[in-house]
Amino acid sequence: MVREPRQERSRTTRRRLLTAAVECLAEHGWTNTTVALVAERAGVSRGAAQHHFPTREDLVVATVEFLAEEQIAEVRSRAETLPRGRRRALAVARMLLNLYAGPKFRAALHLWVAASTDEALRSVLAPLEARVGRESHRVAVELLGVDESRPGVRETVQATLDLARGLGLANLLSDDSKRRERLVRQWATVLEPIVEENVGDQARSGT
Amino acid sequence: MVREPRQERSRTTRRRLLTAAVECLAEHGWTNTTVALVAERAGVSRGAAQHHFPTREDLVVATVEFLAEEQIAEVRSRAETLPRGRRRALAVARMLLNLYAGPKFRAALHLWVAASTDEALRSVLAPLEARVGRESHRVAVELLGVDESRPGVRETVQATLDLARGLGLANLLSDDSKRRERLVRQWATVLEPIVEENVGDQARSGT
Repeated sequence: MVREPRQERSRTTRRRLLTAAVECLAEHGWTNTTVALVAERAGVSRGAAQHHFPTREDLVVATVEFLAEEQIAEVRSRAETLPRGRRRALAVARMLLNLYAGPKFRAALHLWVAASTDEALRSVLAPLEARVGRESHRVAVELLGVDESRPGVRETVQATLDLARGLGLANLLSDDSKRRERLVRQWATVLEPIVEENVGDQARSGT
Repeated sequence: MVREPRQERSRTTRRRLLTAAVECLAEHGWTNTTVALVAERAGVSRGAAQHHFPTREDLVVATVEFLAEEQIAEVRSRAETLPRGRRRALAVARMLLNLYAGPKFRAALHLWVAASTDEALRSVLAPLEARVGRESHRVAVELLGVDESRPGVRETVQATLDLARGLGLANLLSDDSKRRERLVRQWATVLEPIVEENVGDQARSGT
């Protein structure tokens, strides 16, 4: 009976630490994000923080996984509200191309860029990046409901996510949302043919 | 008679400093790129370096301008060799989507990301970024030879450059060139209609 609450408390502490880590990264960058600073921000003792994340590397790995999980959960929950049929391409384009416009992308970007000149950090992040990339791709395919065995579909989905990351960069130093919305509308015309093929399939199968 | 060579020497020194600054940024990041380190790498005395760039901000502005000029000159010189007609879309897609795959983009990225959490650096870089962005766009339009007054053309050119920057990110921690080449081929099919319209115009006007 005692075990459950303690586990739960531990999960809550961990979550507070990870949320604080994302905020620290987005605001202060990798160089200034230490376990001690994160603990302070989370309102958690240094000892408790060190129990969860003995090293800065442990904290980084958990943070990247946390960021990816949060984002995928957010996408999945918002996916429920997307329209079906012809209007779906525009709605999905808007959702995906706005995916990296916020502070979570900025936090991840600080890590990626630091890893590009830090061998130890790179060896931790590179395999994670590959895994997170595959997972994001899988979710985008699900969301669009497209058939990847058709020529060009896989590459179009990949291009959507790479474009979204490029737009994340463009939003780093200034508010790029107006221009981004115009690109969303144009991008919907690129997605429409592959989404509509699928709409056709659904129509043929009677849904 | 004495003046010319001295000016030329000064230009050579400046160029060596800027080349060294790009290398330092790409290898060590913004935090470690000081005027002193750049001078050492360039084989230039600290005094001479400080004469050209009194502050780190002066060095940053000149470096970003230098990166942009170098890239645009490179694109223009390679543009001469691109095929005309139907094969042009693929050639331009390959050239533009590979634009940010190298150490120059990494150098610029270090600056952008540092600026996102450093107000002083941001105030220097944000207007420069806007100018460089407009210039890159102009060159891409030239290269494609497209008519921006047609609906969607402007956004497709912008998406090409944003996608290129997203691909630059994807190439940061690992070699992404094989996947990128598949995206290039797919992207050519997006560019073909707007390039071919133009080919049609040329045919109509008799060239």
